Amino acid sequence: MDGGELSGEERLIARYFRPLAHHAGALGLIDDAALLTPPEGMDLVLTTDAVVGGVHFFPDDPPDQIACKALRVNLSDLAAKGARPAGFLLTLAIPEGIGDEWLAAFAAGLGRDAERYGCPLFGGDTDRTGGPVTVAITAFGVLPRGTMVKRTGAHVGDDIFVTGTIGDAALGLKALRGGATVLDAAAREHLIARYRLPEPRNAAAHAVRTHASAAIDVSDGLAGDLMRLCRASAVSAEVEVDRIPLSAAARQVVAADPREMQTILAGGDDYEVLATVPPEKAAAFRSACAAAGVPAQAIGRIVPGEGSARFLGPDGKPLALERTAYSHF
Amino acid sequence: MDGGELSGEERLIARYFRPLAHHAGALGLIDDAALLTPPEGMDLVLTTDAVVGGVHFFPDDPPDQIACKALRVNLSDLAAKGARPAGFLLTLAIPEGIGDEWLAAFAAGLGRDAERYGCPLFGGDTDRTGGPVTVAITAFGVLPRGTMVKRTGAHVGDDIFVTGTIGDAALGLKALRGGATVLDAAAREHLIARYRLPEPRNAAAHAVRTHASAAIDVSDGLAGDLMRLCRASAVSAEVEVDRIPLSAAARQVVAADPREMQTILAGGDDYEVLATVPPEKAAAFRSACAAAGVPAQAIGRIVPGEGSARFLGPDGKPLALERTAYSHF
Repeated sequence: MDGGELSGEERLIARYFRPLAHHAGALGLIDDAALLTPPEGMDLVLTTDAVVGGVHFFPDDPPDQIACKALRVNLSDLAAKGARPAGFLLTLAIPEGIGDEWLAAFAAGLGRDAERYGCPLFGGDTDRTGGPVTVAITAFGVLPRGTMVKRTGAHVGDDIFVTGTIGDAALGLKALRGGATVLDAAAREHLIARYRLPEPRNAAAHAVRTHASAAIDVSDGLAGDLMRLCRASAVSAEVEVDRIPLSAAARQVVAADPREMQTILAGGDDYEVLATVPPEKAAAFRSACAAAGVPAQAIGRIVPGEGSARFLGPDGKPLALERTAYSHF
Repeated sequence: MDGGELSGEERLIARYFRPLAHHAGALGLIDDAALLTPPEGMDLVLTTDAVVGGVHFFPDDPPDQIACKALRVNLSDLAAKGARPAGFLLTLAIPEGIGDEWLAAFAAGLGRDAERYGCPLFGGDTDRTGGPVTVAITAFGVLPRGTMVKRTGAHVGDDIFVTGTIGDAALGLKALRGGATVLDAAAREHLIARYRLPEPRNAAAHAVRTHASAAIDVSDGLAGDLMRLCRASAVSAEVEVDRIPLSAAARQVVAADPREMQTILAGGDDYEVLATVPPEKAAAFRSACAAAGVPAQAIGRIVPGEGSARFLGPDGKPLALERTAYSHF
């Protein structure tokens, strides 16, 4: 038979994804595998997270946003570990009916973010599915040997910091579902944008690696993720709710209904970094974050205990939360 | 709030997947990410492949077989690149209705293969989906720096080898779909087993790395994958169809209907290694494979050309293939 024929999958890869695979290790996406030559003296950090249509995004969300979200949730994990992004692998399962226009927009979004975060495509796999669009990404980052920031390093007395603002994405999701009707249009848009497109804190990775004793990215809710870090470190946490950084839009929601603090604390999709920092390093951490353009706010401290987290109201009494984290299970 | 609560996902991970994550770099699956300290002087080979219910397996296939297939299709890529498996990351999207029994069997199968192939779980992500079970695995392997066997290294005059036997899985899928009724029961079972559970040729990885000029795993069909290798290497191939190794069951099918050679050459799911080997290394390659317990058979040679592959019948005339590879697109 004659050569030169390309299968549908090869055509798709050549057209949409090869332009994103400019790293030599990607081998132009013509091989079964990618090649990674680890820099001397560096460790690799590996993380994988998927986004599923109807679960993590709405099927009619703009395809470039879906692509960006899929990559960014992984970049956020690298940021919390203090690693610099080095590349990613993509698995994309698409139903019949997804055509060239969708794929072109998806690849364009992915390419923009790959460029922006210095995280090129190394390889991947495209598949048909009878289900929703499913995007599974494995990202890898690098950092000097032995310096990965784990969940397990928090000590009693450490300050608890969060970057950015908390709760916007969860309130945005609620707004998309028809809730939070008290919001003005600009506030509503702000919250929805935060849900659709997280801003991973990779700019703060160096500050985290240099100063934090433990860290986690806030993806399932501040309360639940803080408890995870505490359990892993065999400590507990006390947070002053008034110190949790909120956007103007989120403050608007809470002013109208103080019970929305529940959504803010346990809603998820923040993709901010939660870090514990020894008090003697707190000022340096705050400056390093500020220098990187990332706001960081101390919200409480690590106390003795076994994995609990208390959220203290303005009266010093603990809030009673109905749930602590978002879970699909 | 009190500590100690685990989300549904954490419980699932702790119960089913933590036992598979005994490598120190997996951090007991309690972190956002895994830690990989690359051995000095080694390269990493990264590969990712997903299997989707209704596309790559039947939804009611035994869950341990689904798990094994998902891992093995990735191990097969590592084998073809000459890499030793080092670990993998798992993304598992499951619909409502998948319960503990299914998950326990899935994890048991995955654990058996992780042990068997020396490829421990490093991390992962579990998600809900409104679609079919989707298993995306990223596997990584190691080999001495600069020794990865690519698709691009084939030269005119090289012998073309394949391991094992070709076509069994494609005929097995056909049998499952009600075809190939001429088969006796044992032959039918053999072919179906080969479809359900590939045997990746990791035992031959060292032989491939030491002797092959180029290699690819045969996953989409011998004809199509050989053409891919030829295109990547800017050469062509001539294969003598009579030399292609067939199982007794496949020979039974072809004896009854010679047109089934089309299925064998272009059916896919073989997960054998196709390697090109310079003639002066052919004997050593064959011995090294034999010593590793992997049959390897020379089926043709690389000739000048631009990515075509000719399959010559017993009369020396090229077969006309209707298609060259299986594609879901």
